[in-house]
Amino acid sequence: MQTRVGFIGLGIMGKPMAKNLVKAGFSMVVHNRSRAAVDELAALGAKPAGSPKEVASQVDVIITMLPNSPDVERVALGRDGIKEGARSGQLFIDMSTINPVVSQSVAKELAPSGVAMVDAPVSGGEKGAIDAALSIMAGGEPQDFERALPLFQALGKTITHMGPLGTGGFTKLANQIIVGINLTAIGEALVFGTKAGVDPQKMIRALSGGLANSKCLEMKSEKILSGDFAPGFKIDLHFKDLNLIHDAAKSVGASIPMAALVEQVFAAMRAGGRGGFDHSGVITFFEDLARIQVRKAQ
Amino acid sequence: MQTRVGFIGLGIMGKPMAKNLVKAGFSMVVHNRSRAAVDELAALGAKPAGSPKEVASQVDVIITMLPNSPDVERVALGRDGIKEGARSGQLFIDMSTINPVVSQSVAKELAPSGVAMVDAPVSGGEKGAIDAALSIMAGGEPQDFERALPLFQALGKTITHMGPLGTGGFTKLANQIIVGINLTAIGEALVFGTKAGVDPQKMIRALSGGLANSKCLEMKSEKILSGDFAPGFKIDLHFKDLNLIHDAAKSVGASIPMAALVEQVFAAMRAGGRGGFDHSGVITFFEDLARIQVRKAQ
Repeated sequence: MQTRVGFIGLGIMGKPMAKNLVKAGFSMVVHNRSRAAVDELAALGAKPAGSPKEVASQVDVIITMLPNSPDVERVALGRDGIKEGARSGQLFIDMSTINPVVSQSVAKELAPSGVAMVDAPVSGGEKGAIDAALSIMAGGEPQDFERALPLFQALGKTITHMGPLGTGGFTKLANQIIVGINLTAIGEALVFGTKAGVDPQKMIRALSGGLANSKCLEMKSEKILSGDFAPGFKIDLHFKDLNLIHDAAKSVGASIPMAALVEQVFAAMRAGGRGGFDHSGVITFFEDLARIQVRKAQ
Repeated sequence: MQTRVGFIGLGIMGKPMAKNLVKAGFSMVVHNRSRAAVDELAALGAKPAGSPKEVASQVDVIITMLPNSPDVERVALGRDGIKEGARSGQLFIDMSTINPVVSQSVAKELAPSGVAMVDAPVSGGEKGAIDAALSIMAGGEPQDFERALPLFQALGKTITHMGPLGTGGFTKLANQIIVGINLTAIGEALVFGTKAGVDPQKMIRALSGGLANSKCLEMKSEKILSGDFAPGFKIDLHFKDLNLIHDAAKSVGASIPMAALVEQVFAAMRAGGRGGFDHSGVITFFEDLARIQVRKAQ
């Protein structure tokens, strides 16, 4: 029998993901707080549902793609939530980027109903979601990961089983630690050099040749040199992830001085009205401090 | 007429560089504070000299490769220094990594004697020096860079003219900002994930697939997973560079909060007797804080 899939959370990421599952031939039931995205999916053949509970009562596998930890807790465990419609043998796949400690506590609440859980946050952004080219970092029991795999294959390209539940989320957060810090390092270094009189374009070329090179430098140099910080991935969202990292580090007993500093730098970006910038726009924080603009120095 | 080249500072980097110049056919005069390296070069045909002044009085181009800013100031401007033996038309190439503001002041002191200066720090380490495969970032007037180019070609592979005097050094420091921060980010993120229960090897594989990837992650993962922090490039030397960055940032009016934090982390590494570790060994700082070892968690 065909797998019936429920999808809750049809936002910037969730909507194209749900569409890709429809295209792959899964029988879909969808729910979203605002109606427009539900109608769009319904036009493609998905069945609308009025609540997470209503979704859960009709499907084998439930996927959520929600903004943050409290949303997942509410949708899974709250009134008219997944738990109220759940039955034994179901699989719950949360693909949101949330605090993995919350993932683990939600799984514990669902276990008595016989619902297994996989946490599977993604990277690759809206474009990766539309192109079914996401990188998916999944945590859960091996048999649950195997069961989720055909769905992941309709959504992404690089699919990694990291280990038990929560390890998907922790890997995503480790990723966000490195990316946030590397982008901030690039901003700090390029403003330092530019302020000292070095041509930023030549500097990027020289830095790319050695140990200072990175995917961030490769992908974001053009934005930095043009000063066009249309997202991409917003400072606001990366700030949310840094907050999660902060909480998760406290829970597991790790110390994250560098990420904590980047969190404060991103907080300053938001206070300055730049939360909507691409995260590479963090360079403007250093430009302001040094009273110089890299794009004008070329 | 053949270019006569003086070389002052025959240390870990300077000795193989001077040897490569001898091999390339330059007529060499060499000086070093301790005698053994001088004898080694003399056996290859270089002429020993008793002081920087004595070197300068016999050559067309003088190269220095010294530990730090005060050494370059002393050798160039001090008693029995280059300035005392200098004559108009000579070229002084400093390849040490020093404060570029000091390079600029040394150049100003030498200018009345008719000596032009190029600052040309390198990256690539001892191996790059031995293999004549250094990356050379040079600052100076175009005609002086052109004059230095045949020498650079005997020493390195990637040779970039960055701009006026000092821009070589500032580019090298920007490089060291990014490398120091990226390595610290990798340490912080891998300890965070490992403490949370993620397998470090799987985590590195997943992180390498996306925006978190970097030359540092590619080059240093093996050291991190084995826990073998034989240098490579020592924490002690990178700490010296972070001190230079600190001073240079103050001089030019740039703010470097991230590099300043890394400077303090490296200071803690040295206080803990780990100044001789490869700079990727900064991960042990985070391991200590979290009471875990990444290499044992695999």
